[in-house]
Amino acid sequence: MFEPKDPLYREKVKESFYKQKFMHFIGADLVKVEAGYCEIELQYQEELSQHDGFFHGGVIGTLADNAGGFAAYSLMPAEYNVLTVEYKLNIVSPGVGESLLSCGEVLKAGRTLTTCRTEVYAFSKGHKKLCATSLMTLIATKKG
Amino acid sequence: MFEPKDPLYREKVKESFYKQKFMHFIGADLVKVEAGYCEIELQYQEELSQHDGFFHGGVIGTLADNAGGFAAYSLMPAEYNVLTVEYKLNIVSPGVGESLLSCGEVLKAGRTLTTCRTEVYAFSKGHKKLCATSLMTLIATKKG
Amino acid sequence: MFEPKDPLYREKVKESFYKQKFMHFIGADLVKVEAGYCEIELQYQEELSQHDGFFHGGVIGTLADNAGGFAAYSLMPAEYNVLTVEYKLNIVSPGVGESLLSCGEVLKAGRTLTTCRTEVYAFSKGHKKLCATSLMTLIATKKG
Amino acid sequence: MFEPKDPLYREKVKESFYKQKFMHFIGADLVKVEAGYCEIELQYQEELSQHDGFFHGGVIGTLADNAGGFAAYSLMPAEYNVLTVEYKLNIVSPGVGESLLSCGEVLKAGRTLTTCRTEVYAFSKGHKKLCATSLMTLIATKKG
Repeated sequence: MFEPKDPLYREKVKESFYKQKFMHFIGADLVKVEAGYCEIELQYQEELSQHDGFFHGGVIGTLADNAGGFAAYSLMPAEYNVLTVEYKLNIVSPGVGESLLSCGEVLKAGRTLTTCRTEVYAFSKGHKKLCATSLMTLIATKKG
Repeated sequence: MFEPKDPLYREKVKESFYKQKFMHFIGADLVKVEAGYCEIELQYQEELSQHDGFFHGGVIGTLADNAGGFAAYSLMPAEYNVLTVEYKLNIVSPGVGESLLSCGEVLKAGRTLTTCRTEVYAFSKGHKKLCATSLMTLIATKKG
Repeated sequence: MFEPKDPLYREKVKESFYKQKFMHFIGADLVKVEAGYCEIELQYQEELSQHDGFFHGGVIGTLADNAGGFAAYSLMPAEYNVLTVEYKLNIVSPGVGESLLSCGEVLKAGRTLTTCRTEVYAFSKGHKKLCATSLMTLIATKKG
Repeated sequence: MFEPKDPLYREKVKESFYKQKFMHFIGADLVKVEAGYCEIELQYQEELSQHDGFFHGGVIGTLADNAGGFAAYSLMPAEYNVLTVEYKLNIVSPGVGESLLSCGEVLKAGRTLTTCRTEVYAFSKGHKKLCATSLMTLIATKKG
């Protein structure tokens, strides 16, 4: 679908992901990177919960934001960084289960702006359910 | 401005906030609750950072979501819970500084749905700067 | 995919569409209705343009809002109306061409709230191009 | 508040507004332009209505989009045009009344991107009511 401008796009996405201390803090894992696509997984821990014991909305939003951000970053030239301009998240069912999987994909990769969509699924006893979906805008900024 | 339907609205907001393990995990603090208004504060720690060392976008979104959610919750009758339906967050400047302050306010409190706006400020060396703003929809759900 | 609660869902969508004077005013046409899906088409006229002569963003947003709204409405019980709670629209390329086609689909149909996604395509000399995409929330309200 | 980069900002906003044939088609009027602020007014006509006879959501969205867009445009240098990247609109009450007034203001004017907020009010028998609010992102593009 998309032709990556940086042949080392997987390496740069991984490097950037592992520099994000917050991703490590919540225990998120980068499980897949393609050109214009990214998956992030997160196992449940009590520390990530809201008042009902489900995954907190902020955790769901964090995964949505990051999967879309890295999907966009994968298509940018090597000398650019990615920044989130804005995102909208619809939570369509509670984050109930053992893990979350956030799948981000690029809809349109422009020179300056990239539009992405993310879907966050909750896995409960092997059953996969759509938990949230987002639509977002990212910007490429020149490094240094 | 708003007439709270639950006279114990401060108590219920505090109770709900402190039940959210994720808020404790990231170190967020509930600093103000009024009828239709809520402020949440967060001190910087390295664990909350993205690749540049600034506050992670997911942390900013979490604070925005929660301040708006509790502002909405403060106006709901005692027998209702609040759930985030969706939110949109614009990050207008990086989350640079010693702390974040998220201020959520109700724009319209309907019987079923509530519309809120949140502003998240970053404090750096005593200087306050708008970091992000959100527009969100919440729903009241009957308890039990 | 979806089981319509109202067997006369096509008829009610058509009836509601043709009651919307604004749809007639801009020349929009309802071209497809399925359970949880709707397509609206619009031919170019100069009156619908912005300063560059392309389809105006307000026209694009109108089509996005309506295709999603009718997709949601198709799944609601006969005694309910649909109202748009909110929508977010990303315009990914200018509305250049002879016509627009807006395709709305339901992502999650809840009892009270429905989440939809819309894609608006511009057709220029037979070439189809993604012009805009939206993510939206609708509410079912009891008639009368 | 804002220092306009183009001293002829009022003139350019007016010129651009009157070039938009769709604004003329629906009968919208530019009633106020300040640096970073814009108001658009629209009188009710049956042609602008949805199935209940109220202002159509697409009309409300059009006014929100344009008031924010022109607020952003007023702060851009003379050699730049404005394009809507995306907007989110919450409709908080039906568009009932004799007229709508859309008030757009800039929240943050960056070099490339501008963030705006719009409030759309409905006037019914002299009573002003918040009908919708939006949060949007616009981009400055070099002319020619």
